[in-house]
Amino acid sequence: MFLSVNKLPNPIPTNSDGPNPKAAQALQEGLGGQFGEMRTMMQYLFQNMNFRGDAKPYQDLLRSIATEEMGHVELVANTINVLLEGSSVQANPTELPLSVALDSPNIHHFLVAGQSCRPVDAAGNPWSATYVYDSGNLVLNMLYNLMLEATGRLQKCRLYEMSDDKAYRATVSYLIVRDLAHEKVFAKALETLGVNWNTALPIPKVDTSKMPEVRELERLNLHNQQWTMTNEPSSGLSLIFKGESPFKDSGGQLETLNGHPEGAIIPNMLDAPQEFASGLDAELKSRVKDLSTQVTSDKERFESTSYR
Amino acid sequence: MFLSVNKLPNPIPTNSDGPNPKAAQALQEGLGGQFGEMRTMMQYLFQNMNFRGDAKPYQDLLRSIATEEMGHVELVANTINVLLEGSSVQANPTELPLSVALDSPNIHHFLVAGQSCRPVDAAGNPWSATYVYDSGNLVLNMLYNLMLEATGRLQKCRLYEMSDDKAYRATVSYLIVRDLAHEKVFAKALETLGVNWNTALPIPKVDTSKMPEVRELERLNLHNQQWTMTNEPSSGLSLIFKGESPFKDSGGQLETLNGHPEGAIIPNMLDAPQEFASGLDAELKSRVKDLSTQVTSDKERFESTSYR
Amino acid sequence: MFLSVNKLPNPIPTNSDGPNPKAAQALQEGLGGQFGEMRTMMQYLFQNMNFRGDAKPYQDLLRSIATEEMGHVELVANTINVLLEGSSVQANPTELPLSVALDSPNIHHFLVAGQSCRPVDAAGNPWSATYVYDSGNLVLNMLYNLMLEATGRLQKCRLYEMSDDKAYRATVSYLIVRDLAHEKVFAKALETLGVNWNTALPIPKVDTSKMPEVRELERLNLHNQQWTMTNEPSSGLSLIFKGESPFKDSGGQLETLNGHPEGAIIPNMLDAPQEFASGLDAELKSRVKDLSTQVTSDKERFESTSYR
Amino acid sequence: MFLSVNKLPNPIPTNSDGPNPKAAQALQEGLGGQFGEMRTMMQYLFQNMNFRGDAKPYQDLLRSIATEEMGHVELVANTINVLLEGSSVQANPTELPLSVALDSPNIHHFLVAGQSCRPVDAAGNPWSATYVYDSGNLVLNMLYNLMLEATGRLQKCRLYEMSDDKAYRATVSYLIVRDLAHEKVFAKALETLGVNWNTALPIPKVDTSKMPEVRELERLNLHNQQWTMTNEPSSGLSLIFKGESPFKDSGGQLETLNGHPEGAIIPNMLDAPQEFASGLDAELKSRVKDLSTQVTSDKERFESTSYR
Amino acid sequence: MFLSVNKLPNPIPTNSDGPNPKAAQALQEGLGGQFGEMRTMMQYLFQNMNFRGDAKPYQDLLRSIATEEMGHVELVANTINVLLEGSSVQANPTELPLSVALDSPNIHHFLVAGQSCRPVDAAGNPWSATYVYDSGNLVLNMLYNLMLEATGRLQKCRLYEMSDDKAYRATVSYLIVRDLAHEKVFAKALETLGVNWNTALPIPKVDTSKMPEVRELERLNLHNQQWTMTNEPSSGLSLIFKGESPFKDSGGQLETLNGHPEGAIIPNMLDAPQEFASGLDAELKSRVKDLSTQVTSDKERFESTSYR
Amino acid sequence: MFLSVNKLPNPIPTNSDGPNPKAAQALQEGLGGQFGEMRTMMQYLFQNMNFRGDAKPYQDLLRSIATEEMGHVELVANTINVLLEGSSVQANPTELPLSVALDSPNIHHFLVAGQSCRPVDAAGNPWSATYVYDSGNLVLNMLYNLMLEATGRLQKCRLYEMSDDKAYRATVSYLIVRDLAHEKVFAKALETLGVNWNTALPIPKVDTSKMPEVRELERLNLHNQQWTMTNEPSSGLSLIFKGESPFKDSGGQLETLNGHPEGAIIPNMLDAPQEFASGLDAELKSRVKDLSTQVTSDKERFESTSYR
Repeated sequence: MFLSVNKLPNPIPTNSDGPNPKAAQALQEGLGGQFGEMRTMMQYLFQNMNFRGDAKPYQDLLRSIATEEMGHVELVANTINVLLEGSSVQANPTELPLSVALDSPNIHHFLVAGQSCRPVDAAGNPWSATYVYDSGNLVLNMLYNLMLEATGRLQKCRLYEMSDDKAYRATVSYLIVRDLAHEKVFAKALETLGVNWNTALPIPKVDTSKMPEVRELERLNLHNQQWTMTNEPSSGLSLIFKGESPFKDSGGQLETLNGHPEGAIIPNMLDAPQEFASGLDAELKSRVKDLSTQVTSDKERFESTSYR
Repeated sequence: MFLSVNKLPNPIPTNSDGPNPKAAQALQEGLGGQFGEMRTMMQYLFQNMNFRGDAKPYQDLLRSIATEEMGHVELVANTINVLLEGSSVQANPTELPLSVALDSPNIHHFLVAGQSCRPVDAAGNPWSATYVYDSGNLVLNMLYNLMLEATGRLQKCRLYEMSDDKAYRATVSYLIVRDLAHEKVFAKALETLGVNWNTALPIPKVDTSKMPEVRELERLNLHNQQWTMTNEPSSGLSLIFKGESPFKDSGGQLETLNGHPEGAIIPNMLDAPQEFASGLDAELKSRVKDLSTQVTSDKERFESTSYR
Repeated sequence: MFLSVNKLPNPIPTNSDGPNPKAAQALQEGLGGQFGEMRTMMQYLFQNMNFRGDAKPYQDLLRSIATEEMGHVELVANTINVLLEGSSVQANPTELPLSVALDSPNIHHFLVAGQSCRPVDAAGNPWSATYVYDSGNLVLNMLYNLMLEATGRLQKCRLYEMSDDKAYRATVSYLIVRDLAHEKVFAKALETLGVNWNTALPIPKVDTSKMPEVRELERLNLHNQQWTMTNEPSSGLSLIFKGESPFKDSGGQLETLNGHPEGAIIPNMLDAPQEFASGLDAELKSRVKDLSTQVTSDKERFESTSYR
Repeated sequence: MFLSVNKLPNPIPTNSDGPNPKAAQALQEGLGGQFGEMRTMMQYLFQNMNFRGDAKPYQDLLRSIATEEMGHVELVANTINVLLEGSSVQANPTELPLSVALDSPNIHHFLVAGQSCRPVDAAGNPWSATYVYDSGNLVLNMLYNLMLEATGRLQKCRLYEMSDDKAYRATVSYLIVRDLAHEKVFAKALETLGVNWNTALPIPKVDTSKMPEVRELERLNLHNQQWTMTNEPSSGLSLIFKGESPFKDSGGQLETLNGHPEGAIIPNMLDAPQEFASGLDAELKSRVKDLSTQVTSDKERFESTSYR
Repeated sequence: MFLSVNKLPNPIPTNSDGPNPKAAQALQEGLGGQFGEMRTMMQYLFQNMNFRGDAKPYQDLLRSIATEEMGHVELVANTINVLLEGSSVQANPTELPLSVALDSPNIHHFLVAGQSCRPVDAAGNPWSATYVYDSGNLVLNMLYNLMLEATGRLQKCRLYEMSDDKAYRATVSYLIVRDLAHEKVFAKALETLGVNWNTALPIPKVDTSKMPEVRELERLNLHNQQWTMTNEPSSGLSLIFKGESPFKDSGGQLETLNGHPEGAIIPNMLDAPQEFASGLDAELKSRVKDLSTQVTSDKERFESTSYR
Repeated sequence: MFLSVNKLPNPIPTNSDGPNPKAAQALQEGLGGQFGEMRTMMQYLFQNMNFRGDAKPYQDLLRSIATEEMGHVELVANTINVLLEGSSVQANPTELPLSVALDSPNIHHFLVAGQSCRPVDAAGNPWSATYVYDSGNLVLNMLYNLMLEATGRLQKCRLYEMSDDKAYRATVSYLIVRDLAHEKVFAKALETLGVNWNTALPIPKVDTSKMPEVRELERLNLHNQQWTMTNEPSSGLSLIFKGESPFKDSGGQLETLNGHPEGAIIPNMLDAPQEFASGLDAELKSRVKDLSTQVTSDKERFESTSYR
């Protein structure tokens, strides 16, 4: 079972540089791509559920990262939505409200969804469970997962160079740092099984001193930490993820942290009448209001950050 | 973000009636089918993340059920694994350990996975994100979700009649009851928007007095309850899911419960050397043992229920 | 069995505003999309063929709409072709005839087809039979179909706002009106089974007074009529589709009409030598002419509306 | 546009040899296979809608066969349903009603559909629009269609040898004969464009004297006839499909016939309570009855042939 | 088995007109399209491997063309890479290195691959083995293959008109000529089985006097030649592919040639640091250099043609 | 470019234990599976074609293995065909020739192909180019390929335990040995880049002393050898694949061998009239014979090994 925590793992800046449907579509790779967050989440979940044998610390490790990836799905989805926000606002009354859709790389953002993200990659391919790898073999799974995180990080580094929109960069940079931490988790797991990585890792070899948003997060040691992402008192993760970084980088000490990151507020998206989303008319809105005014404790959340 | 709770929502009986690869494959529909748990989980998650407008109680409602479905994914996956357990044990030394695979409806259970579940449906089709529906329109989403839960329940009722294996029936029956609860959640949500369902629902119209396992769970009022599945103090769910059942059944009062069900232990699967899963040899096992013996607090879990 | 009527259900204006490959591609959603005409046609056909039990008027109802959707497939396909027409004409001799293809959202319109429509959606995904829903359960099928028509109408309303090309708008508006009629058919069918829709429908709630092309068709009561689409004297459809609209709109009386709409001429597309379509050389043309000159009765049709 | 004729093109014998889920699944190839009826129907429809240039008799020819194939879809679908009929009836009260599903080659017949056909092929792959071929080039399209019909006929000849169930054989034999007629239509079309087929065709070369059901239909000259399948007085088809067979067989004279075959009754499928199909309870049945008793003219049809 | 010959079948000019991601993506149809080189290669390979009966010259014929197509895969892939080369070079220091990706028709060229080709078609669909046709029937396979080559040639002729980039045109023209040769191979094979093609072929009927690059290759008689593509002394191909062209064109005499074309150098692609491809840092480069400096005989190749 | 060598890499014993459609279908995983030979061949080919930078020995290494995998495709395909051979022979005149198809796990072997292999996996999924991985990053590609070969070997080890048919075992065992050699190639490549594998590899850890067919091949040192698979005098492969095995096994010295294995005869499949394959009638056979009798040099091959 899982429990919801109504927060994002990392904040999305509200001073995004304006609607950017192209950057939004590029970021879809991080959501529904072959090496995106839906895939890591599902792959680790299946490896956790199908785990065999006594090496339970590795099963715990898989569960912690699977659970973290669920939050990454939310982070990327919300960032795409922020990048789309405002793109179909009419500049003047003669303009067609959704004509932007015909010039966007993913018309489905506007035509199938109500100006929001979709479970597809940056080329529009729907996510497929054929991506999920679980061989049942522990060494093989760890090796695959290392490769998976390294590929995810490679793609995020490429995404970093495609746009400098602030919201886009914040999320891409966070994922670059977290993918590095996960790369270390699986590299360390293989180290406990005998491998010495020496100079081969990390992948990609990138100079983050030229990526200020990334460097800022590394300063917080976020690339050496892994939360247990559980409400239980302990996890086998801490038996594996400790001591020196498995890479010959300047990387400091690995840390297993209990629980989850503090988290940031989830953006609030306004009604988009041109999309008929939510599509409630006056009568239905009044019905809903009758419900909502009864809420007091949640009031604060309902008035949270609005974009444009 | 989400947090892991290391429990299943409902127990899987350990007195399953023996390996049953055919029932295991039938149950795959509940995991990776077009109307299975991976789909409900993803659909409600996307509708929650892409929610627009002020009608926040409905957004909360979606989040609660999305989170519950994550636990259902785990429940069905583990049940499939229990049904597969023991199917490739050699009865005598001349028998080929995996010859069972050639007579099983899903050879991938043994050839691709290490005798465990796969993210596919009962006919072997991999799960696809084309299943995920999110129109952005609130009434339409609620209507779709009602239909989705009703179809899920219909398929579970058909599955019920295909096998009477105890582990299989326990999980199928639990899902029949929970799908009915979810059907009521969405029917109630539409009732708050004006619909009167009268005699049309529930779907399917089934006499559960002939389904003892189902009836037992209904006696606990499990078909009228919905957990918030969050660690927060309140949820908009409770504003909608309350009062009379939206159906003209004998169904009692709807209840919103804080938190999550108490839960049951997750089965522990043993090494399957014929599958090279986990595949650790003596040397690697000794390396892992060095790690594991350090654990004390988790010891109990590591010795949990073993199947055969 | 079915019979061909060599007409379109609604006219396509010949004064389209010029080649518009982007609008053409957007309109593909209405042809090969998950909620497009190929899907409604196939879904209702399968539900009709697989119908069980005594409630035959609902089987007739499905057959009527399935048959109407076949004509909608033709209408959308022809409209896409009209929108593509003229896009690869060379403005001057130095221009490459098909260079337009590199800037079009669907290069396959020019590369795989001979400048014409394809069985794909607006994002290029091929139509798939996984879209077809038939549960065998009558109430569930009706509920799904209601949702399907509402989603189709939602998407058409979004398409309406993407382009104001005359040919595009004529077809999109016709489908908005017909989808509303079908929404009423299924809503009414559910009303006969007990549901009272009250304020929840129609979906989407849209003010058609700002959509002049739609309003014009509503003035003809086209949103309250349903043809039987059969050459038989009667149909069970008329037992269900009668009386008041199931919605609380200003909608007048429902009408079942025998037969099919009068229909409009099918556009005639000229040879496109740059596409090698039809690709006949002088010798083959002369062979064909020998055949064609024998036709007298069809002569009129062969000289019908040409586009550009 | 199209009109519905409430008949099947050929009768399905009611003395089928009993439920046969394996033969039913084999026959799915003829419905949803890459060379099945859904494909021929869609391919010819697209070639008809996208037709370019003056060679209109070929456009008419495509429309006639496209329309006939719609009826073939119905014929195959109904035959599959007849083959499935009775397979889930309980022999004794201790038997599980749907346990047959676990031993059937397509569990979806019982789990997703209510014991009826699905838009998939004999291996369970859903039909895909990637099958549809339309190059825009007339000669190429005719060549492809010839190959398509020959492949369809080859597969039907193989299907013929897989089962001798009467209902199965009746439909397979009808399609063998009709595919041959269609092979002749496209071979003849290419003959008008210059090709001399000589000894190469037909494909496959099969001795139908060992296929009594096929021979019987050939005696009616059904392999040399093509209906126009339209309610219009004439069709360009007749300009092409006339004279000698394009093959060096004993085949007599080609005939273009106006209209459609006389047709046969569509089987009536009873309620299947174990499938919750139609799933109406007493209350809903009574509501429906109120509608149905109003029908008089349709009464006869509603009491038509029932299977088992 | 196969042997590698480290050459391309035809040279790619190094004076390409600059980076052209749109032409690169169009050319993907020739690589991963339904009628591209991956498909022809696989289809002929399967027909060769599954060949039945005594008509061995046709089996040899299939093997020769299958093997040639492997080289075509290489030719198209390398041409796409040449067209992409230089597209992500920064013009000035403030520009983002990969911003070009957001305006390219296939973002995966830059995001998933390291600025290079992908096994997809021009619309981004991944290549699928559902394309591979092998009926087991000799005449049918030959007929399909003729249609396949004709469709491939039709698409290449359309591609020719989309861009006049020199590298693009060189490869497209080579394929137009080779597809014509293959069309003749299969037409000739069917001629040996009785067909007289007369005026119907070739497809498409195109005046190559307006395609100078194509005309140049025809002057070398490349459209009438077929290599055996084997290191064996003889092949059954020569029994079929000889004598007059099967078309009524001006086409001269067919020639079977032993072995393979002389071939041209394979372009050498430089490191792309902005893509982390190859991604070696100084330390790894030095490790690799230790290996490479040991090579003497291969030195020449390693310094071969570089693009930009 | 590539050249054909008309041999298989390893012999298929002619004393197979009789038709075995189930083992044939299991072996399809090795042909069209996600980790089968079509995939390794295509993946290494793409990585070779898209190679960037100076580290050419690794590019050569990829080309050698890509080329070898083409022969593996042939080996597996032919083995499947041998396993299917004889399965549709009529035991007595009353039996239906193809009734075996209804009880086979892949009806397409008999219905779509003419009793031969298909480009699908053991569960019937068609091969897809989404499997092909090429990141452009050298270390990442090598890591992926290591994992790919290890997974391939794991699946072959599982296949080994599913049947002991002689033909099946011969090919499965050959692939177990060759996959180990390839695992060593990529492990060694990563060793040159710094990794020390120590105890973690090989994967899976399997005791081949219980696999006599495998042990026999290891005795020939086949698990330590790699051919260049080219007709060129040298290859960069030899710079990497030399010295000690990268694993702590008893494995002897690595050897790079020029050229290709000696090879074995390709089985000859007889006409299957019940499949209409090849489907030639007396007249066509006589036409073909006119061609074939002209062949002298190939005569020997044409009379090669026949199965049953």
